[in-house]
Amino acid sequence: MIKIVVDAFGGDNSPVVNVKGAVQALAHIKDLAIVLVGDQPVLEQLLKDEQYDSSRLEIVHAPDVITCHDKPTEAIKNKKDSSMSRAFELLHSDESCRGLVTLGSSGALLAGAVLRVGRIKGVKRPAFCPLLPTVNGGIVCVCDSGANTDCDPIHLQQFALMGSLYLQKAYGVQNPRVALANVGVEAEKGDNLRKETYPLLAAMPQINFVGNMESRDLISGDYDLVVCDGFSGNVLLKSTEGTAMEVMKLIKKAMMKNLGTKLGALLIKKEVYKVKDMMDYNNYGGAVLLGTNKTIVKGHGSSKATAVFHCIEQAYNMEKNNLCQAIAEELRK
Amino acid sequence: MIKIVVDAFGGDNSPVVNVKGAVQALAHIKDLAIVLVGDQPVLEQLLKDEQYDSSRLEIVHAPDVITCHDKPTEAIKNKKDSSMSRAFELLHSDESCRGLVTLGSSGALLAGAVLRVGRIKGVKRPAFCPLLPTVNGGIVCVCDSGANTDCDPIHLQQFALMGSLYLQKAYGVQNPRVALANVGVEAEKGDNLRKETYPLLAAMPQINFVGNMESRDLISGDYDLVVCDGFSGNVLLKSTEGTAMEVMKLIKKAMMKNLGTKLGALLIKKEVYKVKDMMDYNNYGGAVLLGTNKTIVKGHGSSKATAVFHCIEQAYNMEKNNLCQAIAEELRK
Repeated sequence: MIKIVVDAFGGDNSPVVNVKGAVQALAHIKDLAIVLVGDQPVLEQLLKDEQYDSSRLEIVHAPDVITCHDKPTEAIKNKKDSSMSRAFELLHSDESCRGLVTLGSSGALLAGAVLRVGRIKGVKRPAFCPLLPTVNGGIVCVCDSGANTDCDPIHLQQFALMGSLYLQKAYGVQNPRVALANVGVEAEKGDNLRKETYPLLAAMPQINFVGNMESRDLISGDYDLVVCDGFSGNVLLKSTEGTAMEVMKLIKKAMMKNLGTKLGALLIKKEVYKVKDMMDYNNYGGAVLLGTNKTIVKGHGSSKATAVFHCIEQAYNMEKNNLCQAIAEELRK
Repeated sequence: MIKIVVDAFGGDNSPVVNVKGAVQALAHIKDLAIVLVGDQPVLEQLLKDEQYDSSRLEIVHAPDVITCHDKPTEAIKNKKDSSMSRAFELLHSDESCRGLVTLGSSGALLAGAVLRVGRIKGVKRPAFCPLLPTVNGGIVCVCDSGANTDCDPIHLQQFALMGSLYLQKAYGVQNPRVALANVGVEAEKGDNLRKETYPLLAAMPQINFVGNMESRDLISGDYDLVVCDGFSGNVLLKSTEGTAMEVMKLIKKAMMKNLGTKLGALLIKKEVYKVKDMMDYNNYGGAVLLGTNKTIVKGHGSSKATAVFHCIEQAYNMEKNNLCQAIAEELRK
């Protein structure tokens, strides 16, 4: 049995989607147990309407919530009764709790991860590693997407290693194609950080380094893992997600323009919705934080229940395949 | 009369689109003169099929071409007979030549700009400033988009000033809204560069600084100018352009899926093409290089004739409104 802690408060649609996502996960994964952390009476009320295996679900009471207005480190330290603080406390004190899923503040998550869970020995910086859909129906990871805004080449080297192991362990990707996000594909391109990182990645026997990637090719399907500093990784991720969303909105508007286009839309909408679904992060997991002693997954703040389910599934898969240990072993070498 | 030099070779579709774009520009702008630089017999042959005011068009012979395989600085120095070298030579020696439009190598352009044209006094780093379409039908500029991969806060401060003046002078944007591309909107967000740059921008009375921008909002229409270091600016620009293109391709594929969707596509395609046109850089100008003594515009390598025309129009507008002088004056203060 693998036990995952779910922060039931945090995220725009909490606690409803968190509870529904947890129930979905219990139905789909038979050796999964969940600890829901949050306001107990509220959670019990919500669970009344759900069907689930109660032997695999427990509630830990935490009446308070960390919001995006709280200062992350202070909130984790001082808001002891918040759902996220208590969830981290559980990870810290209860060995059977192997992972955490939260939709709450990224800053508080990072603070909690470092203060309560700790880095894997040898890991210099934990890094966020979210998934994006590619145009050929696959996925691509970006690491780091924002945990570390200022990075050294050695950090990027570790992101490449951890991300590569993540794709192998959690998604069964054989020999993931690792690229360095850069301003051009030629080896000598880039700023000082990229120029110093390129030869380091090229010399790593543990990864399948395929060279530099131009940002326009992120979702092309040609890469499995894209290595970045957290600043440009955040720019890369958000501009890609944001643009896909804005263009889909324009298409929707075009389809609703007049009677003729509305008729056309009836014939075409099934296929267009497939494109929209393909681009929808709710159908994928969240951003995992790589490099900590236990599995931590951060879902989008605006996640729906399906997205929460996928985040829990992700955490389960990482623990099932012992990703943290694999990273620790690889770094010991 | 404003005389613009057009590098007729360089770009994937040269010299045909360069010549056609030049002819279009002459037809639209009556006080414009053009110098076409390139292989004279080839250019004369192409011009035979065109109608234009020959008193405003001259050809300067340059039989060689700089390719993307040439080392930029060496190419500008040693390939004297190349169209781009000779074009820069003209800018350098002929006072009446006030601007340059090229679709050729960005690296060679930067080398030529610094070596032959020179920086405006006080400008630390010339910067690329391309335009992107926004979802509400407007435009947004990104500065720098790749000329300077490693930047200091003072460079970003100058990009903000030059980009602001550019929007005012070339596009008549009153009081352009200037944002700093960052990982969050809060003032304290970002890496060291952003944390140091934010208060500098906030303290500039010459610009209308509206704070940080998240990358997902680049084409929202909420900003006129987005300030970046050249590395993350390049990531921002290319991931936005690339994603828009990839999503449009998916939509096209969805429309062609089967007989039903093809019928639907007939009813809807006019509106969808409008979205595609809106996102097409051919309908906008190129990336201007801000901070040099004469106007320099770099078009996309894959530009069509319309895009070349818009690049020439851009160079014309910048010179017509004395942008270089305005930057020089502002920096003298």
